[in-house]
Amino acid sequence: MHDPFMKRAIEIAGKNIDAGGGPFGAVIVKDGKIIAEASNKVTVLNDPTAHAEVMAIRKAGGQLGDFDLSGCTLYASCEPCPMCLGAIYWARLSAVYYASDRQDAEAGGFDDSLIYEELSRPIGERKLKMIRMKDPSADLVFRRWNEKSDKTRY
Amino acid sequence: MHDPFMKRAIEIAGKNIDAGGGPFGAVIVKDGKIIAEASNKVTVLNDPTAHAEVMAIRKAGGQLGDFDLSGCTLYASCEPCPMCLGAIYWARLSAVYYASDRQDAEAGGFDDSLIYEELSRPIGERKLKMIRMKDPSADLVFRRWNEKSDKTRY
Repeated sequence: MHDPFMKRAIEIAGKNIDAGGGPFGAVIVKDGKIIAEASNKVTVLNDPTAHAEVMAIRKAGGQLGDFDLSGCTLYASCEPCPMCLGAIYWARLSAVYYASDRQDAEAGGFDDSLIYEELSRPIGERKLKMIRMKDPSADLVFRRWNEKSDKTRY
Repeated sequence: MHDPFMKRAIEIAGKNIDAGGGPFGAVIVKDGKIIAEASNKVTVLNDPTAHAEVMAIRKAGGQLGDFDLSGCTLYASCEPCPMCLGAIYWARLSAVYYASDRQDAEAGGFDDSLIYEELSRPIGERKLKMIRMKDPSADLVFRRWNEKSDKTRY
């Protein structure tokens, strides 16, 4: 049941190398049908966020007209990186199948482990310079959001 | 020096509530000038990945014609979530300034902490069902990538 979807994700990954992109493909399935396919377009689009999984999630949301992808399954040629995992949780995908893993990705020059390590560190101990600038006007923005009765939650 | 950029990010966040979006804004600055601005468009675009930071990074990459945003600084009205942090690392942004933090976001109904917890867990212990389907054709994709001499690394 899962095999043809995974084969398709891997096929997309392979074709994407020839197209000048990274070696990653992803497919999103709902009710046994593919609703979105994507490959990695970081270098082609000059978009650091254009990983195959993110691109597939964007397409699936547009396809369904919904930002909630509950009930959908992602097939990825490689284990999703922390950014893509974050996107997967926000999209509420129900399951993820993957073929290659983070060690394969690292051998290919993609350093997911740095990001995992950084995210697990307290902000002040990260390599990335992150500085909080507390601001009363930002507090006010959240107060307005919390008090808004007709907001769309997500 | 940082104040006007942060004020702008917060202003965008506030205006976005009125536009039907989430209470988040982001600005990317290079050489003292704003090169990209964005707000959260998850509900408006049905795109679960359309956080303000991700949208600003996408715009900045397009603006510079480069997927490497080294030397750029992000100003966000709120502490970036794990997905956005992943995007920030991939984009190689040099610094991040933020006003509200993850506790403010959580009080507003945005549960970043679930994602931090999930990412720190071994795959088999996550709430998200993640299954590896090892596949020789996926190994072959990475072998082709590793052997390709004219690839664009990122």
